Amino acid sequence: MLLTPGPDLRYVTGYDAIQLERLTCLVLPATGDPFLVVPRLELAAAEASPVGALGVEMVPWGESEDPFALVAGRLPADLARVGVADRMWAVMALRFRAALPRAEQVAAGTVLRELRMRKSRAEVEALREAGAAIDRVHRIVPSLLKAGRTEREVGRDIAEAIVAEGHAVVDFVIVGSGPNGASPHHELSDRVIRPGDPVVVDIGGTMPSGYCSDSTRTYAVGEAPADFRAYYAVLQEAQAAACAAVRPGVTPEAVDAAARDIITAAGYGEWFIHRTGHGIGLETHEDPYIVAGNTEPIEAGMAFSVEPGIYPGAHGARIEDIVVCTADGHESVNHVTHDLIVVDA
Amino acid sequence: MLLTPGPDLRYVTGYDAIQLERLTCLVLPATGDPFLVVPRLELAAAEASPVGALGVEMVPWGESEDPFALVAGRLPADLARVGVADRMWAVMALRFRAALPRAEQVAAGTVLRELRMRKSRAEVEALREAGAAIDRVHRIVPSLLKAGRTEREVGRDIAEAIVAEGHAVVDFVIVGSGPNGASPHHELSDRVIRPGDPVVVDIGGTMPSGYCSDSTRTYAVGEAPADFRAYYAVLQEAQAAACAAVRPGVTPEAVDAAARDIITAAGYGEWFIHRTGHGIGLETHEDPYIVAGNTEPIEAGMAFSVEPGIYPGAHGARIEDIVVCTADGHESVNHVTHDLIVVDA
Repeated sequence: MLLTPGPDLRYVTGYDAIQLERLTCLVLPATGDPFLVVPRLELAAAEASPVGALGVEMVPWGESEDPFALVAGRLPADLARVGVADRMWAVMALRFRAALPRAEQVAAGTVLRELRMRKSRAEVEALREAGAAIDRVHRIVPSLLKAGRTEREVGRDIAEAIVAEGHAVVDFVIVGSGPNGASPHHELSDRVIRPGDPVVVDIGGTMPSGYCSDSTRTYAVGEAPADFRAYYAVLQEAQAAACAAVRPGVTPEAVDAAARDIITAAGYGEWFIHRTGHGIGLETHEDPYIVAGNTEPIEAGMAFSVEPGIYPGAHGARIEDIVVCTADGHESVNHVTHDLIVVDA
Repeated sequence: MLLTPGPDLRYVTGYDAIQLERLTCLVLPATGDPFLVVPRLELAAAEASPVGALGVEMVPWGESEDPFALVAGRLPADLARVGVADRMWAVMALRFRAALPRAEQVAAGTVLRELRMRKSRAEVEALREAGAAIDRVHRIVPSLLKAGRTEREVGRDIAEAIVAEGHAVVDFVIVGSGPNGASPHHELSDRVIRPGDPVVVDIGGTMPSGYCSDSTRTYAVGEAPADFRAYYAVLQEAQAAACAAVRPGVTPEAVDAAARDIITAAGYGEWFIHRTGHGIGLETHEDPYIVAGNTEPIEAGMAFSVEPGIYPGAHGARIEDIVVCTADGHESVNHVTHDLIVVDA
């Protein structure tokens, strides 16, 4: 496997390197010792990183050398198959193809997903810490959401709180007020929040551990419209049903259906326009995806979001927790109430 | 060409989409009209983006569809060659390879670099704005650098200033004090800055336009050591010589040599351990690279950093401006003094 900087490399070694145009690549032969090809300029950083502590051989290269040829020269000439990091830049994968013309390239994820999907005890603990941090932010949100403020103003304060509550990086801040709440991937706008607005707040960041948080709550600024309150109650029931469906052996599509069936039966099916969830770990979105068609059974240790939504147009709602499949059910890492959170207008 | 979110797509369309696991891809056939394959969930965002204003056909796909098959189905079965965005995730390039098995993949950059390297008047103006913004930050740095503060504390204030002075995103903040200044890619540490420390401050961000800033100045907190002042003077001469070498027809390696020869002649050659510069635009690092071996002549409109450094170990120094090649020389977009900036200890 050829692992360039990104979540695959971080998972295997702990090395949180940034992908730049100079090749850094951990080479993991099927037999024999791995080695890290690294720009000479990055050698000190690599040696100081967790990959240095692993005792992995460092192979530095200079500014006018060809690091792809360097890798190829250390691999068997008849190498038939090589895994490339899922997020490797295509321009680098193409350089490796030219340097290793006989080696069929496959996504490293075909191997690594089997490991990365099944969280260790330490990874679950890291997800709990991320969940607690984003819960603290949601508990602050009612003090930030006010009629008369714009989504962008509220979003800026939330971004600060995400860092203040322990994240290393803000990954995304969605504040969807009124009709913007009906666009699931809306981010921030200059729309002024008005009394009576439902507001979807979907936020997440990456902790110093590398593990991600992701949680959505829906707020009402003052008295929300009756039609909104009606479908919010359905959504709450659907989200709880999907969580309750989680246990070893259940398929992701069955978890998706558990939420979708309730929403459809209540007449809102056409407004639930996305999958129910996604795996989470070192990436905010990773396997397993909780979506129709995914029949690969869930196992204990798998972690993913459960986040149904209903988006009729004038407003929308979503409730999202990260859950971990346990031996006989699920554990949520988020603990903020699922009831509609009404704040003073 | 198949352009997924990233600088290639933004260059061609202005669409600043984030790469996620769901495929968004602009398909640009050699003949016929382009179209954008987009997750149904992102359709509203794509339509509201500059790509919507271009009147490009949108081809949305649903959560359980295969978007790679969707793209392949709209392309000729005998397609022989396809360019993939340089930064496309390998896992997506491999999916395209399976969906278009007859099409040889090449890096889209082999075509797009010819456009992206030669900045338009509007792009040069965007680089000037980015340069002015980072200059304003460097002018604030003397008020932030104090003996007794840590690199991290100073770096946090600089990051705030980068945003306050007009950038949309902080890309990197290097504060290398004392021996940390001798590691060119050092970022921030908890080292306390001491009286007499030279401090390398290399900072940059991305403007709302998408264009990047990148500028380095070296500061002295109080009276810097005599050996440092000696090589700083050499560095200043070398940086000026490299800038003076820039004009149409000159090779990047000649610009690199213009700086390197002076540093080597003064006896510091072994401590100048990186190339002299890199192109800049929608990416902080892009073509052309100012490095030994690059003999592709520089043309008017090309923009790149000129940033020699000397790193003996106890401390280091670097001076970096972004310059644009003009009809008969160069224009620098950075205007902060190249003299050593001495701040009160």
